[in-house]
Amino acid sequence: MTSTPHPRAAIILAAGQGTRMKSPLPKVLHPVGGRAMLDHAIDAAEALGCERIVVVVGAHSPEVRDHVVKRLGEDAIAVQDPPLGTGHAVRAAEAVLGEFVGQVVITYGDVPLLTAADIEPVFAAHDGVTVIGFEAADPGAYGRLVMDGDQLAAITEAKEASPEVLALTACNSGVMAAPVGLLFDLLREVRNDNAKGEYYLTDVVELARKRGAPTRAVFAPEDAVMGVNAQSELAVAETLFQRAKREALMAAGVTMPAPDTVHFAFDTEVGGGTTIEPYVVFGPGAKIASGARIRAFSHVEGATVAAGAEVGPYARLRPGADLGEKVKVGNFVEVKNVRMAAGAKANHLAYLGDGDVGARANIGAGTIFCNYDGFFKHRTTVGEGAFVGSNSSLVAPVTIGAGAMVGSGSVITKDVDPGDLALGRGEQSAKPGWAARFMDAMRAKKAAKK
Amino acid sequence: MTSTPHPRAAIILAAGQGTRMKSPLPKVLHPVGGRAMLDHAIDAAEALGCERIVVVVGAHSPEVRDHVVKRLGEDAIAVQDPPLGTGHAVRAAEAVLGEFVGQVVITYGDVPLLTAADIEPVFAAHDGVTVIGFEAADPGAYGRLVMDGDQLAAITEAKEASPEVLALTACNSGVMAAPVGLLFDLLREVRNDNAKGEYYLTDVVELARKRGAPTRAVFAPEDAVMGVNAQSELAVAETLFQRAKREALMAAGVTMPAPDTVHFAFDTEVGGGTTIEPYVVFGPGAKIASGARIRAFSHVEGATVAAGAEVGPYARLRPGADLGEKVKVGNFVEVKNVRMAAGAKANHLAYLGDGDVGARANIGAGTIFCNYDGFFKHRTTVGEGAFVGSNSSLVAPVTIGAGAMVGSGSVITKDVDPGDLALGRGEQSAKPGWAARFMDAMRAKKAAKK
Amino acid sequence: MTSTPHPRAAIILAAGQGTRMKSPLPKVLHPVGGRAMLDHAIDAAEALGCERIVVVVGAHSPEVRDHVVKRLGEDAIAVQDPPLGTGHAVRAAEAVLGEFVGQVVITYGDVPLLTAADIEPVFAAHDGVTVIGFEAADPGAYGRLVMDGDQLAAITEAKEASPEVLALTACNSGVMAAPVGLLFDLLREVRNDNAKGEYYLTDVVELARKRGAPTRAVFAPEDAVMGVNAQSELAVAETLFQRAKREALMAAGVTMPAPDTVHFAFDTEVGGGTTIEPYVVFGPGAKIASGARIRAFSHVEGATVAAGAEVGPYARLRPGADLGEKVKVGNFVEVKNVRMAAGAKANHLAYLGDGDVGARANIGAGTIFCNYDGFFKHRTTVGEGAFVGSNSSLVAPVTIGAGAMVGSGSVITKDVDPGDLALGRGEQSAKPGWAARFMDAMRAKKAAKK
Repeated sequence: MTSTPHPRAAIILAAGQGTRMKSPLPKVLHPVGGRAMLDHAIDAAEALGCERIVVVVGAHSPEVRDHVVKRLGEDAIAVQDPPLGTGHAVRAAEAVLGEFVGQVVITYGDVPLLTAADIEPVFAAHDGVTVIGFEAADPGAYGRLVMDGDQLAAITEAKEASPEVLALTACNSGVMAAPVGLLFDLLREVRNDNAKGEYYLTDVVELARKRGAPTRAVFAPEDAVMGVNAQSELAVAETLFQRAKREALMAAGVTMPAPDTVHFAFDTEVGGGTTIEPYVVFGPGAKIASGARIRAFSHVEGATVAAGAEVGPYARLRPGADLGEKVKVGNFVEVKNVRMAAGAKANHLAYLGDGDVGARANIGAGTIFCNYDGFFKHRTTVGEGAFVGSNSSLVAPVTIGAGAMVGSGSVITKDVDPGDLALGRGEQSAKPGWAARFMDAMRAKKAAKK
Repeated sequence: MTSTPHPRAAIILAAGQGTRMKSPLPKVLHPVGGRAMLDHAIDAAEALGCERIVVVVGAHSPEVRDHVVKRLGEDAIAVQDPPLGTGHAVRAAEAVLGEFVGQVVITYGDVPLLTAADIEPVFAAHDGVTVIGFEAADPGAYGRLVMDGDQLAAITEAKEASPEVLALTACNSGVMAAPVGLLFDLLREVRNDNAKGEYYLTDVVELARKRGAPTRAVFAPEDAVMGVNAQSELAVAETLFQRAKREALMAAGVTMPAPDTVHFAFDTEVGGGTTIEPYVVFGPGAKIASGARIRAFSHVEGATVAAGAEVGPYARLRPGADLGEKVKVGNFVEVKNVRMAAGAKANHLAYLGDGDVGARANIGAGTIFCNYDGFFKHRTTVGEGAFVGSNSSLVAPVTIGAGAMVGSGSVITKDVDPGDLALGRGEQSAKPGWAARFMDAMRAKKAAKK
Repeated sequence: MTSTPHPRAAIILAAGQGTRMKSPLPKVLHPVGGRAMLDHAIDAAEALGCERIVVVVGAHSPEVRDHVVKRLGEDAIAVQDPPLGTGHAVRAAEAVLGEFVGQVVITYGDVPLLTAADIEPVFAAHDGVTVIGFEAADPGAYGRLVMDGDQLAAITEAKEASPEVLALTACNSGVMAAPVGLLFDLLREVRNDNAKGEYYLTDVVELARKRGAPTRAVFAPEDAVMGVNAQSELAVAETLFQRAKREALMAAGVTMPAPDTVHFAFDTEVGGGTTIEPYVVFGPGAKIASGARIRAFSHVEGATVAAGAEVGPYARLRPGADLGEKVKVGNFVEVKNVRMAAGAKANHLAYLGDGDVGARANIGAGTIFCNYDGFFKHRTTVGEGAFVGSNSSLVAPVTIGAGAMVGSGSVITKDVDPGDLALGRGEQSAKPGWAARFMDAMRAKKAAKK
């Protein structure tokens, strides 16, 4: 999809205030599948091979501006201020597009499920105006696409529609493409003589007809064009996103006994033959090979898991966790920024942060990589085949040599040589009868308190 | 809703045995949204401004009696023994109501979703009998409301109904209001000459008609009047409760990517702009401010979370956890009865029980507040900006001063002064080659066993 | 169901490649309710009292063969090589059945929900061919059962069916029974003169009719006969299995506020009056008594839980966990192969592996049973009423005597006598002002780095 003889640009409208979200986070930055809705729109524009991508932002949302600048640079920003309608918003992008010659598609920062494949047909013709429509199950207040043969005669708002037009189920998604020159010529003709005093993008269809330019409609699935204006709609978009991702992964051979309980991010990769048990949440950046097993209640983000590895239940893999073949990370274990080589194990209640664990090394239950001194992070290295006893504290920076052992409950602050045993714990002593006397005294105290 | 010139009383029927629940817990004490169904009914009566609330209990359920006495006192108890029908149950409350003059509404301890707002219309008229009906999607065996103009002619049981009456979809919820004098006068006329030999409350409608008293019907949503008689119905009530709570919170600006996976209690408060990730369970008493984040797999009960705080994944907040602004409580961390001041952190595998943590203090991974000696609980205090190293044991009662540090793996039994470093761990020692020899010996032993 | 005067045998077809599963695991070994689909089919055959059970496997799946041999022995294996259709597959079992005289039912290794009760009617007649049909909601491509009075005239494939036959909703499940002699006589007459060149089992119906043998149809629910050919269908089967299990347990008095979030294994036992909170996963072998409580986010497998015990939230019980009455296992605690006697507690962040915990003993937060030395597992014994302080390491093999105490943070390598207090930790020391100086230096370093 990325090569086309006809240059393409995208104008993404993202200036809406999103007040119905009732959230301090700007609407288009709310995530679907772990990625801001606006980024989904930018992803689609990039996948379509758009040379230029301009995001129209409002003056009220510096966070949106910053987000776009960080990803696309200052050149991608157009500001609409004040907000005077969709047509006005698109015009705000004209100067930014500058000398661009080619086709422009207008998309939306709050329509997160619309993919490049859904949009592609809008570029099939290279003249006139082409609108993406959808067949609405419940057309309600959507603008209707009124056709005249194979030409789009008008987009009619529901409240101004005749009963015949209201009966139409072909509706306007808002997405539209046209040659850049035609688009802005038409927009200059759009008037704001309506109740709200706004310039509507949809008016360009009738204006194009008037000057004899072709006006067409292509269609996308209704789910793909859904816009998000409220928290409940965001949840619906997420549900649709998850459903599609789950079905795609099952079709690729991933076993999920309870697929509805597994939540993926937009970029999660899972190989066929891998099993994902119920209640697993993926954040962005997870890559799971074929033939792995992600057990129940696990949380995986920014982590790589190789074949034959077993994760969970209750394992948390954070960014930089890199699990080799047949590695096991068990319950109540957190791994962050640690490479675990083939066959290494950390099966119970442990924190592995910032380090390297050698092949077949065993990290005992309750072990902590003490990676943080309150100011800086340091690394822990555990050699091949080393055995770290339970409840140990490895105070980084520190290295446990290959084949070395650390006695249970040790605090290790100095490197341990290969093959050595290191101990760092108190001697055991006994106070005969002390517990019996203490318990008697406490029982008496407790009885006295009643 | 609490002020009305007409005094109100409620009689809550809670004497049923609930045998279909097949549970030793009395039916009306089964919770919906973390609160006993009976308490939901009492809540509604209180919200309606009822001066008197009488709960009719059976002789078979001392737990129900005790539950009511604890909340409302002995004056709220009427005992029905033996059980001879709903009319008989209401009559059991007559003596308890004593000199009360005003309107009485009859509600049910197993109808947990009926709110004060649903019931309020039953008090609109102050004479005659008013029944709450509902439009049934599937009327089935429900009693039908037979209207005569705007008057309720009769409540007809399905099995005694003609085909015309069976075709009615307006059904009886069982909730009814009348002036106290009229109510008991009518009940004295109710006969038990029926198959079961029981006194039916519904008979008062026809009796009222006979003496020319007005008989009216007002309507509530079917979901609101659902009664619970089996575990599966309890689950349905819970589902309806959760759905309403989730929708209300999303409408208020709470972001939930997977709202169906978040379970609230009856009193959970969450501010707009807060995100709740999938798989979060709230017990009673949780108050989450705006702009907080509750991450996946968290369990929050009786806890307060301030703006900017981040909880989880896999965090458990128990009663008395009080998290200040920007506090972070991370994975596999339990906090109980601890106040954490602004910016304090406990990010990994820790137990914080009974204490105070100062602003910006950092509690290392694996740290335990040793609050229990087997008999009594003691408090741990960690000062502002203190740094508690990983895997430490703070043996309460103990105080770590402001800006002090505790070395990793230390057992701290004595107070640490501000700015000091405390260590309480063994010296590290090495046994050169010991691990290599041990591993060789064990490998040989293992091979010999095969 | 196990006694019948007519000997029974089952031939279970399990030779399909299952390529649509796109998984290295053979299709029939994929689990439903934690048990391989093939084992569900074998379970049904055993429950029907089949004297002989023959599983027809393909040459491509040694894992399936091994699985069957392990459960039923070599005598149960018939190999179909190459695969030439269902009729050919059944014939592969003829030699293995040998001298068996009686009725044979043909079932499928990828039809996991079909129970013995569903199949039983197929054995009602002892002559002719009896087929299990089902009423299809959407008959689509299923073979239709064409009846002639009470006799089955033919099974017609959808693609060869006339419009009248296509309109039939009675469809073929593929399950069929016949006397062994008749079955194989008929199969010898089946031809492969069709597009795929395969021998179809369904042809035996018309062949039986031709020789005047009775041909009958009995019916099972559509859900019960569903076959699994893709990962998404496996997920549907799992959903149906879970729904049935949840409903059965609720009917028996188990309280589940969110039953759709509780996942059972095929053999999970739960007593009435027990509450299971949201998000609980059971693996095989769990037995929960009446009046227990399994709290949210718990994972229970191969474990026994007695009355009054409370598990979770976030508890993991692994095989051999045996919890006595009123035992408490709390958050982030893993118990494996440990018997906990009545009233014992391990409430927070602990690993209890391979041992015994006496009545009323208290295992402190962060305690680890150090059961593994890298080669062998050893046992830990904690006596009645003992108190193990937080963050302790009990290095097995080791015994803590009754009523003994272990100080917090101790490493215990030697037995502790009853009533004694054991300590094994470093002395606390202080470095006055060290923390303040360190923090100042680090702040300076951090500032310099910026």
